[in-house]
Amino acid sequence: LARDHFIGVDLGGTKILAEVIDRRGQIRSRAKRETPFRGDGRDLVAALSETIEEAIGRSPVARTRIAAIGLGSPGPLDPDRGILLRTPHIAARRVPLGKRLGERFGVPVILDNDVHMAVLGELEAGAARGCRSVVGLWVGTGVGGCVIQNGRVVQGINKNAGEIGHMYLDAKRAVAGREKGTLEWEASKTGMTRHLEKEIRKGKKTRLSGKLHGDERLHSSDLAKAFRAKDKLAVEAVRHSARYLGIAIANLFNALAPELFVLGGGVVEDVGSPYVALVREHANAFAFSTELSKVRVVASKLKDDAGPIGAAAAARRKLAASGS
Amino acid sequence: LARDHFIGVDLGGTKILAEVIDRRGQIRSRAKRETPFRGDGRDLVAALSETIEEAIGRSPVARTRIAAIGLGSPGPLDPDRGILLRTPHIAARRVPLGKRLGERFGVPVILDNDVHMAVLGELEAGAARGCRSVVGLWVGTGVGGCVIQNGRVVQGINKNAGEIGHMYLDAKRAVAGREKGTLEWEASKTGMTRHLEKEIRKGKKTRLSGKLHGDERLHSSDLAKAFRAKDKLAVEAVRHSARYLGIAIANLFNALAPELFVLGGGVVEDVGSPYVALVREHANAFAFSTELSKVRVVASKLKDDAGPIGAAAAARRKLAASGS
Repeated sequence: LARDHFIGVDLGGTKILAEVIDRRGQIRSRAKRETPFRGDGRDLVAALSETIEEAIGRSPVARTRIAAIGLGSPGPLDPDRGILLRTPHIAARRVPLGKRLGERFGVPVILDNDVHMAVLGELEAGAARGCRSVVGLWVGTGVGGCVIQNGRVVQGINKNAGEIGHMYLDAKRAVAGREKGTLEWEASKTGMTRHLEKEIRKGKKTRLSGKLHGDERLHSSDLAKAFRAKDKLAVEAVRHSARYLGIAIANLFNALAPELFVLGGGVVEDVGSPYVALVREHANAFAFSTELSKVRVVASKLKDDAGPIGAAAAARRKLAASGS
Repeated sequence: LARDHFIGVDLGGTKILAEVIDRRGQIRSRAKRETPFRGDGRDLVAALSETIEEAIGRSPVARTRIAAIGLGSPGPLDPDRGILLRTPHIAARRVPLGKRLGERFGVPVILDNDVHMAVLGELEAGAARGCRSVVGLWVGTGVGGCVIQNGRVVQGINKNAGEIGHMYLDAKRAVAGREKGTLEWEASKTGMTRHLEKEIRKGKKTRLSGKLHGDERLHSSDLAKAFRAKDKLAVEAVRHSARYLGIAIANLFNALAPELFVLGGGVVEDVGSPYVALVREHANAFAFSTELSKVRVVASKLKDDAGPIGAAAAARRKLAASGS
């Protein structure tokens, strides 16, 4: 039988998701693990391998039919050499993920930024189907991004384009090398948590107090629940995040005017359409010119599966391009 | 004789420059006028026509050999219909420049953003020759921009992409629809003038005091002279502008990682390499990842001729694409 299936893996700030996916983008199996974000490179490779192994075990497809592994990871990366250089949310540094997983599974490993993979997934089979120019923004533990031009992911000269979360939006007090003043600093779940903790220390009340102590990280589902219950601080945090995301989108619309902006990640999935509507409103208000076209902003359709589906598609595209 | 020459026109915030240019990008004649920035649409068309007329009159080439007019104008524009919608630096609104000039000269008129034209000029015959992905930033009365991907100007869904000057960099206090907090607000000559005037009102001394009274607009040559003489306020204004431009470039490098950033416009031409060096330094310091590639920042080579040469090239490309 032909090697006509792909493994798509999403290495996120909080979890690893691996799927066996066929040529047409159909999911045949899924497996999930927590990201060992405090571990070293070996822990990371072990967790990825186990998750992939579990996905293969659960799928109806023989191991010998896997053509390649597509892996999306937070950046910066060296995609050509398959190396995870560093990421703000995982302790491990300079991990040769491509080499290690390639040795383990005996197939090519295509590494790229996690959000590149997710937005490619949306382009292939989700909210951006049929588009040629798209910008994706994923709001979760961090804020990731991806620019698509002419139907292809813009990799850039450093193969790390799309790092939109690191856009400085408060330049006045920004210090080079520090995250303060960036989109991610203000709009990510981490940023919202920081804001909530600060307000709680000031004595303000929120139903999220219990969720913000010690090691426990804020789940976007809890944030969403508090937002829907009109918890004042939760609403404030969500609105603040949406405003910064909207301004970042206006900036990118001014520069590139893509057909579509796709939003994904935990915050977008859990808070849902009220968040997307707020972002859209700010994007259109802050854009320089909307005379000839409004700014189109929609939510991801594939949700958690966007990353694996896109990673599998990237692996398929790569093998096709190299003629195998 | 064949129609083998083009008129390239640059409509700037302060001056109009028209040139007769041959197929290979060689300039055959030049003419220049002040932009009637307080006049209406009729004044603007008249000034453009006179400048073009003068360029034709001065060139060794017969009027019948002109194939098309390429016109670069500040935006936003409706390039498909040849309409100048509005610009921050010229009073006239909704001016059908393409139609009027087409009637007057009897040839097709290709309208696009002035900085799109200038950066296309640099790509064809200047500092960006041979590049596939370039971002240009022009610092003068305003701050204009242009994104080039795969050797072509990114026009975007609204045909007005590249409006990088309107990037909000101070989001905290930004108000939708207001210029305050944008790159242009901080980094343009207008922004530097505002800063200098504020400091003078506070009683600070600068050799530029005499240049900032009444109607007289600050010339970048005067700013450059004061900067070279180490005038404290001039140095401060230039450094402030370079810092904002560097941060904007870091933001765009994170998103697109183009091969090259090209800087042009009056401030860049007159202050010269010290300005470009400051911008480059900030761009590299604020970029999220420079592990795999530094941010390359260079000055325009064609200077004032970039706009007309690019406009002529855009006209030539457009005629070639439409098969005439």
